[in-house]
Amino acid sequence: MTNTQVTLVQIDNYGPWTVTPEPRREVDLQTLQSRLYADLSQLIGNREGYVFFTRFDNMVAVTNGLDTEAHALIQESVGNRYPVTISLSIATNSSPADALGTATDQLQNAGSAQDRGRTEILRGDPIAESDRGEEDVQIAHFDVNDATGKYTDQLNEFDSFINIEQGYAELMQYMRKAHDSLSFFVGGDNIIAVCDAVDETGYLDAIDHVRETVDVDLKVGVGTDRTAQAAGMAAKHALETCREENTDVEFA
Amino acid sequence: MTNTQVTLVQIDNYGPWTVTPEPRREVDLQTLQSRLYADLSQLIGNREGYVFFTRFDNMVAVTNGLDTEAHALIQESVGNRYPVTISLSIATNSSPADALGTATDQLQNAGSAQDRGRTEILRGDPIAESDRGEEDVQIAHFDVNDATGKYTDQLNEFDSFINIEQGYAELMQYMRKAHDSLSFFVGGDNIIAVCDAVDETGYLDAIDHVRETVDVDLKVGVGTDRTAQAAGMAAKHALETCREENTDVEFA
Amino acid sequence: MTNTQVTLVQIDNYGPWTVTPEPRREVDLQTLQSRLYADLSQLIGNREGYVFFTRFDNMVAVTNGLDTEAHALIQESVGNRYPVTISLSIATNSSPADALGTATDQLQNAGSAQDRGRTEILRGDPIAESDRGEEDVQIAHFDVNDATGKYTDQLNEFDSFINIEQGYAELMQYMRKAHDSLSFFVGGDNIIAVCDAVDETGYLDAIDHVRETVDVDLKVGVGTDRTAQAAGMAAKHALETCREENTDVEFA
Amino acid sequence: MTNTQVTLVQIDNYGPWTVTPEPRREVDLQTLQSRLYADLSQLIGNREGYVFFTRFDNMVAVTNGLDTEAHALIQESVGNRYPVTISLSIATNSSPADALGTATDQLQNAGSAQDRGRTEILRGDPIAESDRGEEDVQIAHFDVNDATGKYTDQLNEFDSFINIEQGYAELMQYMRKAHDSLSFFVGGDNIIAVCDAVDETGYLDAIDHVRETVDVDLKVGVGTDRTAQAAGMAAKHALETCREENTDVEFA
Repeated sequence: MTNTQVTLVQIDNYGPWTVTPEPRREVDLQTLQSRLYADLSQLIGNREGYVFFTRFDNMVAVTNGLDTEAHALIQESVGNRYPVTISLSIATNSSPADALGTATDQLQNAGSAQDRGRTEILRGDPIAESDRGEEDVQIAHFDVNDATGKYTDQLNEFDSFINIEQGYAELMQYMRKAHDSLSFFVGGDNIIAVCDAVDETGYLDAIDHVRETVDVDLKVGVGTDRTAQAAGMAAKHALETCREENTDVEFA
Repeated sequence: MTNTQVTLVQIDNYGPWTVTPEPRREVDLQTLQSRLYADLSQLIGNREGYVFFTRFDNMVAVTNGLDTEAHALIQESVGNRYPVTISLSIATNSSPADALGTATDQLQNAGSAQDRGRTEILRGDPIAESDRGEEDVQIAHFDVNDATGKYTDQLNEFDSFINIEQGYAELMQYMRKAHDSLSFFVGGDNIIAVCDAVDETGYLDAIDHVRETVDVDLKVGVGTDRTAQAAGMAAKHALETCREENTDVEFA
Repeated sequence: MTNTQVTLVQIDNYGPWTVTPEPRREVDLQTLQSRLYADLSQLIGNREGYVFFTRFDNMVAVTNGLDTEAHALIQESVGNRYPVTISLSIATNSSPADALGTATDQLQNAGSAQDRGRTEILRGDPIAESDRGEEDVQIAHFDVNDATGKYTDQLNEFDSFINIEQGYAELMQYMRKAHDSLSFFVGGDNIIAVCDAVDETGYLDAIDHVRETVDVDLKVGVGTDRTAQAAGMAAKHALETCREENTDVEFA
Repeated sequence: MTNTQVTLVQIDNYGPWTVTPEPRREVDLQTLQSRLYADLSQLIGNREGYVFFTRFDNMVAVTNGLDTEAHALIQESVGNRYPVTISLSIATNSSPADALGTATDQLQNAGSAQDRGRTEILRGDPIAESDRGEEDVQIAHFDVNDATGKYTDQLNEFDSFINIEQGYAELMQYMRKAHDSLSFFVGGDNIIAVCDAVDETGYLDAIDHVRETVDVDLKVGVGTDRTAQAAGMAAKHALETCREENTDVEFA
């Protein structure tokens, strides 16, 4: 059984800030959002976690191995370098979706995302070091079979993108409903899912579902380890095995 | 009639690079991709263009006002500062989708996205300064009605995200098919569409379609101008008018 | 005669901010300062200007070709993306030092650098487009002869650094007093000086002075053009000629 | 007695790269250098170390608490995201200057800084965890008395800068010779010195020397702790005490 520690990252009162006193230039908002995400990638990723950009104003991270002090430092570092601040809420569950549900509840209980007085909240408890195990995180790394040959080198780039997006939209919903998993598009033709010990049949069913529904062919490598970084790197190697051996699902 | 100049930005041979000699750490790929996007936002955005992250390895920009020299400088600047290079392909059409189609063809004709010998391509011709007009670019800025109240402050963050994604997936396909428009998620609950002189009925139909299909309520501000930046800022102000006057569509 | 347009960039009320409510972590201040400088490099450099980090809280730029609108956009972009704001003051003179003197006066007249109410000042007038000429900016690019062989590969790195610093400290004062020039260390063993039509004898005297005073051997390439970027690139090529032909001073 | 762990960071073969195949645009070099420094600040600083930009192509870090694995990860992260790579050399000594001397020797023994075949060297041994102590690092944080009132708000900005630079040039040499300390300008009017248990008399002598030689008035706060970050933050608080109580030297 996995034990996924999830952190919800929310920019405080971001919507109102973007239009106060009047709408800010989109180029600056895009730069701010993507650099904040890049910084969180480094701050969390170099502590063995993974963070996903999701909606950019709300980001989801897998943070097994990061304690409260690490979270506080990340919050302080952002506050020192950006015109906005972030709130963080931590929760753990064998089900990634339930963990994120608890993290969301904790933050909602502290006030609205657009409450000016609700800033730099830090809620929830990381897993005690003694409770951590070698199989706490399962990461599944999907990509699209021959995306370059079938899409990028053939179609109008927007139609390539529509295909990838459709594949992602179907997968994210299927994995959420069938397995309480959280799936994130990470660029190119790659989707990373945080899962609760899904087995080979589970992944084959997901791939079948996406193929039948939107005609996009996926394959997946799966890794399980103590942290997102270790599980994710194992998943990448497993995905390379899929590529070499022309298989749909490989476990590390 | 609009006259949208589109630039397709493609990282050269990126897929193979990410797994050579073996898979690179995801944290570094995410940081690289989002910072490259942030840099292009600044390089293009501070010349009055807009760039969208799309798949990150393929990005789409609206570049009215950027000549070949500006494109060459952007390409050189990226080559000087990143471990990867980019190819650029420029095309213009009253239909944004057709412009991107031509830009894609030009790049595909130069070789595969995964051809190691095909690097730093720069193809296509910007609009001659004398052919530019005051209504060359139409930008529509959509957002979700009361997204914070209905989603962010109520649902599990992943379910909020699924709702936003579904709204986006429907809108992008509808606008592509009905109006040859290119729609991009830009964070939060915001979608920016590059359109060919769509009128009020067109936007109302799109909003209806998304509401009926996936039950997500959108509103939209629309701006038209000489550049993406000017049209986009007008669209943002029009969207503020929607908010104040509780309307679904406003033209600047 | 040159006609150097100089812009003084000053972070508003920075000192007090760094220790309020208590001292901020040095790592974050260093990151903030160096990224702000990098952003200004892109914003100014991609408009053909040069900016030097100087003290980081006060930076000096050569901005021939940047009008008031470009300055306002840079100021707005920083304000949208950083927790601090910047003031800008523009002045022009054949003497770079006098131009900076005027720019400094204009900003001092607007209030103290640590006055909380003095933010986002934008003073001074760029050169009218019609008054710009082909020899407005002279850039001299110095480096140390065989710095790698004599210092980096031989000495304790700190002693290498002391030698480079001593060479810089002497040169900056000599060029300031003898020629009203502004000299900036730009990393490695490189110093870039903004000069007022200094001739070969002037540069030879400066090199002699540094050699005699602190025993550091310099050479220099000099370029003159309409903008800092064009003059600076010509200077770099001239410096390559020094290297190839073993000479001390080369004009492009 | 302190026990300073120093890491020398050197960009591999950087000089030749900057002019191959011909000189690269200065704006891109400046952006690359300052962002690399910002990234190292985050990577090292968020592990409780300090890094100084020094010459940018050679940087000096105080890395007590960072093991070999952390150094390898930093090296890999830079290699994945920049067009250049870095070499790292680690050494420890009660004398910071001697530690850096050993680190420099180790790197020089591996080859020249401009040897194309010498890349991504990682040499030297971090302090064993069991040998670390509570007083391993002494940090002295200097600033200039009333720099804003006496310089920034009065003088031509370049003359302010000359004064600060002169103060720094004198202090760095004095502290190197008298105390084997390494002093670094960190922006504004701030200098941070890494010292070997210098006492109050030692600091008063240094301040006197700088006042007498170049007429620049310094004060200093001193902190000692297990890591650079902890010692440095203590030093900042001590410097605040100097400011409040109008004293020249304060120990935390």
